[in-house]
Amino acid sequence: MKWPSHGSNPRYLYEAMNIKMPAERIDFSANINPLGPPQELKARWNTLFEYITDYPDPHASLLKSNLAAAEGVKETQILVGNGGAELITLIARMIAGKRVLIIQPAFSEYEEACRVNGCTVAYHQLEPEGWNLDMEALSLKLKDADALFFCNPNNPTGVFYSSGIVEELIERCRVYNCLFVMDEAFYDFACDYQSIIPVIKNNMHVIVLRSMTKMFSIPGLRLGYLLANEVLIEKMAALKPHWSVNALALKAGEWCLESKEHVQLTKKLIKQERDRLALFYRQLDFSVSPSSVNFYLLKDSKLEAQLPLFQFLLEKGIIPRHTMNFPGLEGKWLRFAIKGPKDNDRLMEAIQEWRKVR
Amino acid sequence: MKWPSHGSNPRYLYEAMNIKMPAERIDFSANINPLGPPQELKARWNTLFEYITDYPDPHASLLKSNLAAAEGVKETQILVGNGGAELITLIARMIAGKRVLIIQPAFSEYEEACRVNGCTVAYHQLEPEGWNLDMEALSLKLKDADALFFCNPNNPTGVFYSSGIVEELIERCRVYNCLFVMDEAFYDFACDYQSIIPVIKNNMHVIVLRSMTKMFSIPGLRLGYLLANEVLIEKMAALKPHWSVNALALKAGEWCLESKEHVQLTKKLIKQERDRLALFYRQLDFSVSPSSVNFYLLKDSKLEAQLPLFQFLLEKGIIPRHTMNFPGLEGKWLRFAIKGPKDNDRLMEAIQEWRKVR
Repeated sequence: MKWPSHGSNPRYLYEAMNIKMPAERIDFSANINPLGPPQELKARWNTLFEYITDYPDPHASLLKSNLAAAEGVKETQILVGNGGAELITLIARMIAGKRVLIIQPAFSEYEEACRVNGCTVAYHQLEPEGWNLDMEALSLKLKDADALFFCNPNNPTGVFYSSGIVEELIERCRVYNCLFVMDEAFYDFACDYQSIIPVIKNNMHVIVLRSMTKMFSIPGLRLGYLLANEVLIEKMAALKPHWSVNALALKAGEWCLESKEHVQLTKKLIKQERDRLALFYRQLDFSVSPSSVNFYLLKDSKLEAQLPLFQFLLEKGIIPRHTMNFPGLEGKWLRFAIKGPKDNDRLMEAIQEWRKVR
Repeated sequence: MKWPSHGSNPRYLYEAMNIKMPAERIDFSANINPLGPPQELKARWNTLFEYITDYPDPHASLLKSNLAAAEGVKETQILVGNGGAELITLIARMIAGKRVLIIQPAFSEYEEACRVNGCTVAYHQLEPEGWNLDMEALSLKLKDADALFFCNPNNPTGVFYSSGIVEELIERCRVYNCLFVMDEAFYDFACDYQSIIPVIKNNMHVIVLRSMTKMFSIPGLRLGYLLANEVLIEKMAALKPHWSVNALALKAGEWCLESKEHVQLTKKLIKQERDRLALFYRQLDFSVSPSSVNFYLLKDSKLEAQLPLFQFLLEKGIIPRHTMNFPGLEGKWLRFAIKGPKDNDRLMEAIQEWRKVR
């Protein structure tokens, strides 16, 4: 069977699994803020209609200016994109035909975009015993790589690697003349996040990717940006379709940047629910990845492959993310978004039922 | 000075021209339906909010199915994109490094996207005396081309070339093993449009591009599609970023397809205004291109370069599209969208004032 390559759009998953899709479902497969979009956006939604009848600003000037102020960089060091996925495609296009190293498990789009652009792809595999980064083993592979992709906080494990580790990676990439691409799609969920953005000014080989769709719950609108040295930004901007970011995403993005309280409330809720879930799982003999963000890997320690649990949950309308296309996981774990208390309660009830029969 | 590469976003134009932007403006530089979005979309706008919090369907299944039914093709012969611009980028990426021939003047994105993908670009120039297509002269150049770009109805002239001419082009491209890319972004404004879509089934070398942003006045949302043989569609789909079409555009697209009356009303209005404007211009010794659609080229016959007229209008808040980056035009014409009667009246008043002083 052909597994859907991503979460969300559960219809494709039920079709692939040949399971009847229940009318009531809770989708834990997409890592979106359970609080929804910020009030600033909800309240002004109706005023957005007027933005659909004119072309979006192809330079995203206002959003870029606000982002530059927030991040302490120049506007010329920012590229706004049609979601993280477009920006990954632009990076892959820029390094077409080169040798790419991916720290795995990771978001599958890096590999897919690189392969379609004729890159050769190698892995540095993290292991479930702590998901630690073995810097020496990685360095050996960096010698043969033109670009390194690193997802931090990591998707799918949720593990956040400190700025010390990141700086070490940047330095090693510099030594080996390797482009360092760090995807921070979930950085704003991590309580202990420390920015390494200032280093992009003096490092020609660093790209940091950001998404605005997760924290602000606007995946349907598509919005992301990347931070890098001016020279890299210009190269990627030239490859980008004109007007690729729609006018609603631009306007919503400006409003979301004002929503500082929403971010704080979200972080607090996520931490509280993450701790509650972790405690629950431990009592029932499940393994949970040491996540710092709004999703985690789960494994019933009594099973090797998690397919029976996956099927059990799907039939109940609880939709985890399969891990079949995450190298090193391949079905030995399931990924779950952290949702609101009510939805997490429903998940725990289902897990408890499962434990009764298995 | 650096001319903006497209219409709309007039702020960039006023900045480049160093003219103070008047508070009241009418933008004739973007070729958008003056009736605005269809009632089907306006009335349901508020219900679209719920679509922003979930990922869009990356396969655009429902819209594709509706388009397939409307065009009499298979869903596998359609690729839905983030506006025409994304689809042009995908075509250019697919033919990277190849030899491209563009029938000029034409939408500037073909050349830009092809050049950034390492293509060599040659022109076949149409001349203002009728903007006729000299098939024999074109054929000589087809021998040295891997792909031909043809904008029909033509942007910027508005001239529509009949299905007989198009079929001849398709045949000649077949003979010379040349990809034929026809951009029909404005096809639904042409009263005498005849579809050549059925030929894509049996022709591996034909791509037809469509935009939904012009007729349905949703350029801020971004939505387009292309029709081609399955093999080509698969190649381009592989190059496309995941979720590149946002969820609002998908839903709006479904509703727009229901808006048949809106299309008829628009065509009627545009024809009536086009005729009225043409009559007016002839009386004042202006040349107008023989447009079949919702924009036209204009030239004060008493001037060679139209810059003085352009400046005169901009200062009055009437914003034409400059033609500096249309090969063969380079400022000798101005392009105007056909807007509603009131806006067109304002334009005619300004032209009359111009005629009094020049």
